[in-house]
Amino acid sequence: MDHEQLRVVLAAPRNPLNIGAAARAMSNLGFSHLRLVKPYDVAFREARSAVRAGHILAGAREFETVAEAVADCALVVGTTAAGRRELQHSVRRLEYGGRLIRKRLASERVALVFGSEKFGLSNEDLAHCHWLMRVPAREEHASMNLGQAVAVCLYELARSPEAALARPEKKKRPEAASLEELTRLLLDVLGASGYVHQRVEASTDMKIRRLVRRMDLSAHDAEIWLGMLRQILWRMKG
Amino acid sequence: MDHEQLRVVLAAPRNPLNIGAAARAMSNLGFSHLRLVKPYDVAFREARSAVRAGHILAGAREFETVAEAVADCALVVGTTAAGRRELQHSVRRLEYGGRLIRKRLASERVALVFGSEKFGLSNEDLAHCHWLMRVPAREEHASMNLGQAVAVCLYELARSPEAALARPEKKKRPEAASLEELTRLLLDVLGASGYVHQRVEASTDMKIRRLVRRMDLSAHDAEIWLGMLRQILWRMKG
Repeated sequence: MDHEQLRVVLAAPRNPLNIGAAARAMSNLGFSHLRLVKPYDVAFREARSAVRAGHILAGAREFETVAEAVADCALVVGTTAAGRRELQHSVRRLEYGGRLIRKRLASERVALVFGSEKFGLSNEDLAHCHWLMRVPAREEHASMNLGQAVAVCLYELARSPEAALARPEKKKRPEAASLEELTRLLLDVLGASGYVHQRVEASTDMKIRRLVRRMDLSAHDAEIWLGMLRQILWRMKG
Repeated sequence: MDHEQLRVVLAAPRNPLNIGAAARAMSNLGFSHLRLVKPYDVAFREARSAVRAGHILAGAREFETVAEAVADCALVVGTTAAGRRELQHSVRRLEYGGRLIRKRLASERVALVFGSEKFGLSNEDLAHCHWLMRVPAREEHASMNLGQAVAVCLYELARSPEAALARPEKKKRPEAASLEELTRLLLDVLGASGYVHQRVEASTDMKIRRLVRRMDLSAHDAEIWLGMLRQILWRMKG
């Protein structure tokens, strides 16, 4: 997928906060080309103050119609709330639609079109879309805030299915000898404290040894425990 | 996964629009339990006007500390911007962290904690988290708007990996006889218009037949084409 191939198109946005929020989500998630169709003038001017998304708003292009805003795109996808019935179009869930868009973005310009806050996309705007996409929201409250809808759609495009499977964090584990030293120290502390009854000493040994392994400590945290236990033992025997 | 097991915790939110936006995204995506830690009073009162998320704000609970807000949760996950270095915690990408949270939500209460707009989570708040999660944003601009971060995280929890593979729309296709009738009509129209030269008639037949199949029409659209072509032919021969 080539992030540079996406055009985010806002049709008739009214609220400057939403234009700014759309631009900020684009900046966060690595998309840069914003197109505005007949934005409410004041809204556009006020939006330019959006947090660290100034470069996107400065480069945003204005158009008179959706047709002109998507003219150079090979795929035009409209967004819609789940509750609305669009008989003339395929409506795809974001998970599936996002996959199709990612594929097309490898080689073609794709327009992702969002309607106005109040009315969504008009029937005329919809007629320029190849298909529609919806965020899988509750039917009883499907209409999302514009800035949040843009963020969620762009996240789906930017997310990595592989990352869901990977286990990225690498925790360095202590060597067995450290864990055994930790176990010994803990047993000594417990012995000194009277926690261990002579009668059950052997079985306690094993219980504590397993307990220590179950903690699944990092090498770093094992060192901290060793230090704490040494200090406790020193004080108890002092 | 049980949506009812999730607690969305906003630590020290300052902007009423963000509290409202968080509640709206929760309502959109099917989560209902919001907890606020020391919200700025005015912000909380103003937020109650959030679009159709009133039931969530009305049920929101207030706490003095993060510790109290997460006390009854078996897993506490903090959110963080990618740029920040959290040496004491595992930081997991949203795709992977979301998978872990979904699993735990099947049987346990999970708290998802968001820091304040300006400072994120404090070191003290972080100490109550089992691990941290980050939206995979650009390193140069990793800090997301609070309302958008909540929407994106909840979408990852609500999304269906299966839906990415499915092909939900069912387009009814025309029977071969309809396509053949359409092909014949189109050839007749082209013949009447002079588009087809006698010399190449056979190869044109095949080209047009394949062209019609490539259109991948729905049964409904094939009917429309049949009507249009019949009318055109009638007029041309009239």
